Amino acid sequence: MTTLDTLGKQAKETTLLLQQATTEEKNAALLKIADVLIERQEEILVENEKDLVNAKDKGISDSVIDRIRLTEERIKQMADALRELTHLADPIGEVLEAFTRPNGLEIEKVAVPIGVVGMIYEARPNVTIDAASLCLKTGNAVILRGSSSAIYSNIALVSVIREALSLTSLPVNSVQLIEDTSRETAEKMFRLNDYLDVLIPRGSKNLIDTVVRKSSVPVLETGAGNCHMYIDHDADEKMAVELVINAKTQRPSVCNAIETVLIHQSWFDVHGKTLIHQLNSNGVLIHGDQKVKNENPAVLLATDEDYATEYLDLEIAMKVVQSTDEAIKHINYYGTKHSEAIISNTDTHVLAFLNDVDAACVYHNASTRFTDGFEFGFGAEIGISTQKLHARGPMGLKALTSTKYLLRGQGQYKK
Amino acid sequence: MTTLDTLGKQAKETTLLLQQATTEEKNAALLKIADVLIERQEEILVENEKDLVNAKDKGISDSVIDRIRLTEERIKQMADALRELTHLADPIGEVLEAFTRPNGLEIEKVAVPIGVVGMIYEARPNVTIDAASLCLKTGNAVILRGSSSAIYSNIALVSVIREALSLTSLPVNSVQLIEDTSRETAEKMFRLNDYLDVLIPRGSKNLIDTVVRKSSVPVLETGAGNCHMYIDHDADEKMAVELVINAKTQRPSVCNAIETVLIHQSWFDVHGKTLIHQLNSNGVLIHGDQKVKNENPAVLLATDEDYATEYLDLEIAMKVVQSTDEAIKHINYYGTKHSEAIISNTDTHVLAFLNDVDAACVYHNASTRFTDGFEFGFGAEIGISTQKLHARGPMGLKALTSTKYLLRGQGQYKK
Repeated sequence: MTTLDTLGKQAKETTLLLQQATTEEKNAALLKIADVLIERQEEILVENEKDLVNAKDKGISDSVIDRIRLTEERIKQMADALRELTHLADPIGEVLEAFTRPNGLEIEKVAVPIGVVGMIYEARPNVTIDAASLCLKTGNAVILRGSSSAIYSNIALVSVIREALSLTSLPVNSVQLIEDTSRETAEKMFRLNDYLDVLIPRGSKNLIDTVVRKSSVPVLETGAGNCHMYIDHDADEKMAVELVINAKTQRPSVCNAIETVLIHQSWFDVHGKTLIHQLNSNGVLIHGDQKVKNENPAVLLATDEDYATEYLDLEIAMKVVQSTDEAIKHINYYGTKHSEAIISNTDTHVLAFLNDVDAACVYHNASTRFTDGFEFGFGAEIGISTQKLHARGPMGLKALTSTKYLLRGQGQYKK
Repeated sequence: MTTLDTLGKQAKETTLLLQQATTEEKNAALLKIADVLIERQEEILVENEKDLVNAKDKGISDSVIDRIRLTEERIKQMADALRELTHLADPIGEVLEAFTRPNGLEIEKVAVPIGVVGMIYEARPNVTIDAASLCLKTGNAVILRGSSSAIYSNIALVSVIREALSLTSLPVNSVQLIEDTSRETAEKMFRLNDYLDVLIPRGSKNLIDTVVRKSSVPVLETGAGNCHMYIDHDADEKMAVELVINAKTQRPSVCNAIETVLIHQSWFDVHGKTLIHQLNSNGVLIHGDQKVKNENPAVLLATDEDYATEYLDLEIAMKVVQSTDEAIKHINYYGTKHSEAIISNTDTHVLAFLNDVDAACVYHNASTRFTDGFEFGFGAEIGISTQKLHARGPMGLKALTSTKYLLRGQGQYKK
């Protein structure tokens, strides 16, 4: 088995060629991977079956097994995504700024690849194709480290990618897989500063926290979403109910779904019953404060832990507040700086909420479910950043780029 | 002594007020700090004297003692810098992007403060004022950790800042100092993820490497500069000699000075003697390859270690190469991705060099000494980033900002 250092060196050796690759060459590689993926789908499904059998033997839950499972349909979706990616603009080489200094020095800031990306992720084998294709499109080499539960699938998929690359002008070692899924090797990967320019964890909060805590390689953190919706005193009843139901139930398992609804006392007094009824009809379990429980005894009494919990399920915390300010304080205390919304018709309240809530995405009169690279029109998504540096919120291809200053002179030197 | 957790909590509590502060309020605070600095300069100089006496007792080198030393002139310079900072544009609140989605959702990306900045630095007490003022201007709280060798000066300076803040609308705890300069407390600071949004080390390569290796808080790395100048076959003799001399000798102790000059064989054959002579006349010790040594026996034979060394002194490595490509390979192997230059009149060589050299700043026909926030026209400088994420090259006020998406709808929900 190839050592991590060898993988690192091999990745580093591809970066100049990848940086020089034209958009046409990169797109040709993506199309070739799509073709080989379809050609070799039977073999991929055979390997995936091994992972599924192992998972069942280990008693892994059905929902995780479903994430591991590949089907002809899912492979076709991967191939389609690869082909769609070729239609997106190539961010590399874009001149982001240009200015001339009084001494005549011309300065340009251009977008360049980051270099070598480390990607560490869990069950879903489709992340293998997804991560590799986004890195290739942006001229980055990638070293992939998936989970042991999808190792046969991942080996097959990376073999497909590398066969396809061998038929193009891009270096085969642009995409490499760490086949050793031991914890020790993962820990080494966290400290591979000589070769990795960035490490991107994708998966559970536990995985991300471990990477953030242990990695000396810079991390692009894609974090958890304890998202809130605040219904102000004068919110439209129909809009508020629709948005809460959408943000909670349309897909409860995702990070941009809401976990707590905060409601102004005067709105609650008039419309609280309706909202509770609608949530119940949609199968949502409510953890409410004493006022909510007084309204409906079936409500469970919310604890501090409820306000801090990302249920990712048909459960919601509900709290009555006296002001927009109280809502903002609650959100800034319990939130994870992901997506937060106010439903209101009072301009001063909306402005205070948009300015003072500390989160990647702050909404007025819309569902938090739009925090997503595709909904933002980026055409692709690396993940949703909840950190403050480099990129915040949905990350498209640009998040996989760095910059470089080019300075052109006529002999200028420092006086 | 206040614990690190308390400092963290207190800093966090100021972030909303700092974020809301207007440009006028922030500028008023900077001017007030400048005033109090001048008012209390005698007291500062008394405290600084304690640091100088301790440093002498410990046998600390004269050059470091000079960095610790404050004088009336240096305090005046700090006050002037504070006042100049008020003239710079406030990046906070700037709308960086604005677009409307087909569903009518209006999306704005605005610049916001990062939050709480941790600054860890060495001898120079002027960094205390510098870091605090740049953070205040960008609405960030800052926790400072200077070195034990300047502790009396730093305590005095932070007391000045906090007294000044108490006379303004900004919270006093916007600027706090860790008075305990033990290694244990520094290590705790590296893991203060609950309160610090970013950690910025300023000082020696050793300090920076330690912070990068040990910190789980995201780091803005300001790295070492092993910078090169490549003289191509057709470079103008006068320009090439002038630029090498300037980039090496104008201020050899800084990171954007060059450490190695690479020379095309045919240029070297004609002009090598002149360049060596000029370097010698400027007191520069040359470590050359065999070809250079053949030209002048006084030259020391360069080792691999020389090519990797940031001399920061009147010493230079010199190597003869056969092509621009060989120069690029050498730079990408030995360089620290800081500042690199080509002196050439051949467009294809210039283009290859600008594109293929992996560095924050790549120059054509100019001295590398311009890699600096002031020379770039930023009006201020946090440091020079040699990392790939968030900011690369000279960092002005914008490097101390994050972003936030504001989304305004009319009831849109995800279908």
